[in-house]
Amino acid sequence: MIKAGIIGSTGYAGAELVRLLLGHPQAEIVWYGSRSYIDQKYSDIYRNMFKFVDMTCKDDNMEALAKEADVIFTATPQGLCASLVNDRILEQAKIIDLSADFRIKDVSVYEKWYGIRHAAPRYIPEAVYGLCEINREDIKGARIVANPGCYTTCSILSLYPLAKEGLIDMDSIIIDAKSGTSGAGRGAKVDNLFCEVNENMKAYGVASHRHTPEIEEQLGYACGKEVVLSFTPHLVPMNRGILVTAYAKLMPGADSQKIGAAYEKYYKDEKFIRLLPEGTCAQTRWVEGSNFTDIGFKVDPRTNRVIVMGALDNLVKGAAGQAVQNMNLLFGLKEDMGLELVPLFP
Amino acid sequence: MIKAGIIGSTGYAGAELVRLLLGHPQAEIVWYGSRSYIDQKYSDIYRNMFKFVDMTCKDDNMEALAKEADVIFTATPQGLCASLVNDRILEQAKIIDLSADFRIKDVSVYEKWYGIRHAAPRYIPEAVYGLCEINREDIKGARIVANPGCYTTCSILSLYPLAKEGLIDMDSIIIDAKSGTSGAGRGAKVDNLFCEVNENMKAYGVASHRHTPEIEEQLGYACGKEVVLSFTPHLVPMNRGILVTAYAKLMPGADSQKIGAAYEKYYKDEKFIRLLPEGTCAQTRWVEGSNFTDIGFKVDPRTNRVIVMGALDNLVKGAAGQAVQNMNLLFGLKEDMGLELVPLFP
Amino acid sequence: MIKAGIIGSTGYAGAELVRLLLGHPQAEIVWYGSRSYIDQKYSDIYRNMFKFVDMTCKDDNMEALAKEADVIFTATPQGLCASLVNDRILEQAKIIDLSADFRIKDVSVYEKWYGIRHAAPRYIPEAVYGLCEINREDIKGARIVANPGCYTTCSILSLYPLAKEGLIDMDSIIIDAKSGTSGAGRGAKVDNLFCEVNENMKAYGVASHRHTPEIEEQLGYACGKEVVLSFTPHLVPMNRGILVTAYAKLMPGADSQKIGAAYEKYYKDEKFIRLLPEGTCAQTRWVEGSNFTDIGFKVDPRTNRVIVMGALDNLVKGAAGQAVQNMNLLFGLKEDMGLELVPLFP
Amino acid sequence: MIKAGIIGSTGYAGAELVRLLLGHPQAEIVWYGSRSYIDQKYSDIYRNMFKFVDMTCKDDNMEALAKEADVIFTATPQGLCASLVNDRILEQAKIIDLSADFRIKDVSVYEKWYGIRHAAPRYIPEAVYGLCEINREDIKGARIVANPGCYTTCSILSLYPLAKEGLIDMDSIIIDAKSGTSGAGRGAKVDNLFCEVNENMKAYGVASHRHTPEIEEQLGYACGKEVVLSFTPHLVPMNRGILVTAYAKLMPGADSQKIGAAYEKYYKDEKFIRLLPEGTCAQTRWVEGSNFTDIGFKVDPRTNRVIVMGALDNLVKGAAGQAVQNMNLLFGLKEDMGLELVPLFP
Repeated sequence: MIKAGIIGSTGYAGAELVRLLLGHPQAEIVWYGSRSYIDQKYSDIYRNMFKFVDMTCKDDNMEALAKEADVIFTATPQGLCASLVNDRILEQAKIIDLSADFRIKDVSVYEKWYGIRHAAPRYIPEAVYGLCEINREDIKGARIVANPGCYTTCSILSLYPLAKEGLIDMDSIIIDAKSGTSGAGRGAKVDNLFCEVNENMKAYGVASHRHTPEIEEQLGYACGKEVVLSFTPHLVPMNRGILVTAYAKLMPGADSQKIGAAYEKYYKDEKFIRLLPEGTCAQTRWVEGSNFTDIGFKVDPRTNRVIVMGALDNLVKGAAGQAVQNMNLLFGLKEDMGLELVPLFP
Repeated sequence: MIKAGIIGSTGYAGAELVRLLLGHPQAEIVWYGSRSYIDQKYSDIYRNMFKFVDMTCKDDNMEALAKEADVIFTATPQGLCASLVNDRILEQAKIIDLSADFRIKDVSVYEKWYGIRHAAPRYIPEAVYGLCEINREDIKGARIVANPGCYTTCSILSLYPLAKEGLIDMDSIIIDAKSGTSGAGRGAKVDNLFCEVNENMKAYGVASHRHTPEIEEQLGYACGKEVVLSFTPHLVPMNRGILVTAYAKLMPGADSQKIGAAYEKYYKDEKFIRLLPEGTCAQTRWVEGSNFTDIGFKVDPRTNRVIVMGALDNLVKGAAGQAVQNMNLLFGLKEDMGLELVPLFP
Repeated sequence: MIKAGIIGSTGYAGAELVRLLLGHPQAEIVWYGSRSYIDQKYSDIYRNMFKFVDMTCKDDNMEALAKEADVIFTATPQGLCASLVNDRILEQAKIIDLSADFRIKDVSVYEKWYGIRHAAPRYIPEAVYGLCEINREDIKGARIVANPGCYTTCSILSLYPLAKEGLIDMDSIIIDAKSGTSGAGRGAKVDNLFCEVNENMKAYGVASHRHTPEIEEQLGYACGKEVVLSFTPHLVPMNRGILVTAYAKLMPGADSQKIGAAYEKYYKDEKFIRLLPEGTCAQTRWVEGSNFTDIGFKVDPRTNRVIVMGALDNLVKGAAGQAVQNMNLLFGLKEDMGLELVPLFP
Repeated sequence: MIKAGIIGSTGYAGAELVRLLLGHPQAEIVWYGSRSYIDQKYSDIYRNMFKFVDMTCKDDNMEALAKEADVIFTATPQGLCASLVNDRILEQAKIIDLSADFRIKDVSVYEKWYGIRHAAPRYIPEAVYGLCEINREDIKGARIVANPGCYTTCSILSLYPLAKEGLIDMDSIIIDAKSGTSGAGRGAKVDNLFCEVNENMKAYGVASHRHTPEIEEQLGYACGKEVVLSFTPHLVPMNRGILVTAYAKLMPGADSQKIGAAYEKYYKDEKFIRLLPEGTCAQTRWVEGSNFTDIGFKVDPRTNRVIVMGALDNLVKGAAGQAVQNMNLLFGLKEDMGLELVPLFP
């Protein structure tokens, strides 16, 4: 049994990790970290866990945790993981960081977009970007896995084959993304109250959202040159789900068939990516509660653009599910272990 | 492996059965019945099942199905199961009927509340009311299990120990129930359109809902005399969940402690009933996607009443989950097999 | 023009007052009070008011406000209005208090249920309970109007004629109430976050909600004796609306016809009460945005009970609309002035 | 008083027309047309209208209606208005058509995108496209006003000044639009059931939605050349509201200041367009129930694009509100008469 500790277990992503690890045949949670609820019973905070979890919440002591755990998940605000990690810890446990601390290779880009000083830049080079379908082999040997963001996972997976195969004009990419409200976290803010979110639709972080450089960096690796794109997130009155609608101009020679073939080439054996028939629109309801990313596309000859639609559950493939997938890779388990979840509908 | 067939597999309860059976280690679905979608791919109708189910929908031929299946689930409108069942079928397969056809022992009560003629009253006596926590032993040997209704399961489980132990005045019972909209089915009706249900709350079927006699009959068995009660269902703008708020006058001598003890007596070893600390209100969000019924209560000395709150997922413990629990009992499997689902939140 | 000041203008009830007063032909808002947003533009906080309101928020100085205003609305937490009011203020302005400070005549009952000491009990006797349909004449001459609570308005109006006419057993009353989330206010609390409320249904304040004694007191006046009843509020995932489902045993001789006649007797000329045909269920969607209370009922001969259903918009008839109706009465205007709002659907 | 008749009064747009006309001081509804509900009381179908409307529904007899009405609103499926209109009718009444029949000048474009034969192409030339802010003067003298679509109104108003002033590359326009579900109409379809829409986000009509040519035609007039753009609508789990997020490359010399100036130039005196401070995102909640279009924008120097966000209520400015605005223009009334509605929030 893999002993797992979670720092930040009472946020929505942390709680989803708990749900998934409770159903994982080879993992066991030994530490429910939560600075806000120290010494409180975990199941008093998340009553869905009543009769499943009997432990109380602990503080953020990563050193103590490293002695008890084989793997540490940090589902915490930006900066915390970097501020806690050190060599002793890394000698004892693997770290899967669900924050952005180790996702971006250029520390100045991180510091500019996040507006904080990186506390442990020396660990950035060795950290592996944990997008399993793309970096599978590198993840296996890592000490630190930088678990991708929710918008990022959906955006990159939706466009990666097209970028890799040179089928789209990389200067023309526009990603219009829509997210359920759990992506905004469990902090008590007026903006996230029921009556503020319900019956509303809005964009936010326009031309400034922090997931932008992460998407640009990864797609840049795919196409072999620097990428600059437009990314606009929106808040949707639903609990879970990310829908990405991505637009790009076709390169000369690219057509519907070649695009379909590119997706097949990279994803046909990927269990957690479901390629929809051409013209079928991805919908968040069909992936809820599961680790799938559904991808569909449509070529528009009128505009010479391809419109790609990707959908995933922001708390599963966009956070906790991918973290478990990374854990499986790190520990040599079957990659889908504990993740064979049929989407819940309605 | 138990071979299972589902008649009515494209309704919400039928689809939830598919989800649960796909995750069941000892069951296999051999027949996706759906009169409305014959010869269409099941996963084109429920795209969450894409990559899980490759079969197409078949018609309602229960005789043909009985030859292929060990167990037949009927998740169909009232009257259909009774119109199809016969001795040949029952010799070949068990039937778990999710409709009301075999729930009520007095056929005249059935015919009065449902307004239809019962097509096979001769099978009513042998049918066992499949409320597992109450009728566990009888279910094991049955040929026909009458799977309880969603409101009914929640109402009966919430009040059963108090009725059985004589702690409440059975003439004083009022059950005010609230249901998510999946309980209204997948039929295309104006009343169930998004814009009609969203931002609305209403009662319906006041003093006339068909689950009333079912609750009265079962609570009557518990207390040993005829019961007449008020039951009012309400439609709530959410997908899943039933919340029952039940009110009853305390009998002389009954108090908070005795009520707590009664619940403990009947339910303390029941895996799928979670007794909440006194005064804690059951909430539907904590059971979503799972087979649990959460029960809490509060004694009000001002009014000498007990208020009992029960919550379950109408598609799981209120339909498909209980059906699988019944299947497990029928085939001698561990009762919770395939049902160890952690509730999904948020 | 009546000059109106609002203390607490940035809560949901306060903002609804702003909306209604902006549409009132004889009123003008001179003071947007909001302790939390002093000196901020009101329309930056409520952007629906952009281009309507150009003023900034002011503090809670009721004395200063009284010099500028003819009427002061306090849409504030319990205790604040009582702590600010004094003779000088009352000589200059009328007060319509949307909090509970002056609703309950017995100060010890207030202090017990609200758990705070009343700061100005000497004004309680003169305050008039502002349920317009019941206390119309008394309101006209008042200095302090205690604007009723949202649950209370709906509960009392639903049962008043039956209590007054002696048609129901006053010891048998159970009020099961459901409220949209705007009733919980705009404070930043985890419990009111979108993901906590959405897809959930729960009771709260069971046997202890503060609106209970207010309902009991008023229904007690109606029937001429002390009333003790069960009141259970529930939180519903919608923005606006209160639905009351009330149950009571019929007194000997009471029947459907007499009940209908009682409603006609008291309400047939009431503009803001719409009596539905017998058996029709009140629904919150049909009153949204308006000052109506819709009332329907059903007599159940099986249980000898009447089930009454009342629906209103908690922010209008349950708060700001009734406050404006009270203002109209206080200043001798047409009672429905500024309140002729067609309900918004969908 | 203007006598108004509505054909299609029981759809959501028709019902919103009823709400608005009931509040209009110079209009009176004389005909509630509804093929589906002939002879039924209008207020039995829309119970929000109880006590407001006492009439019953009539059939689609436009000739008979023309004799009774000064203006006829057709809130009907495509093709119906064109099939009914004739010279006799136009001599007696003005027509404001909320369908697409007279929106597109090139009948072959209409027939291609809508897949139906146009029944009255001879009236297309005289019909005026009823986008009031753009075509105000032409509308005043029209016999047939083609009331714009909901997506279209929001898209065109958001981009018009930039197109007109040559600030954006017209070949680079991408419009990603999101709509509340009332836009899908009140027809009983599985896809629009509560449980199908709730907790879901999806695109539809990708590269093929019928509002595309309407947007292209109008923006083409603005910039003086043919426009081809990408338009993608999405369905959002909310009742009302359209949010448009539009992307375009800046032309050389265009910048934030020039874009702001362009919006000011065309809209600063427009009552129903609210220009938000630069960088502020339009949100549907701030316009609900009102006739406003809120427009905000952000220039992104990294990508040299402008992102424009427009929000309106699809049933008001996107349908019935604009129709009333057109009626006011046709009859020489104050343009905002009956439309001075404060947005309802929450």
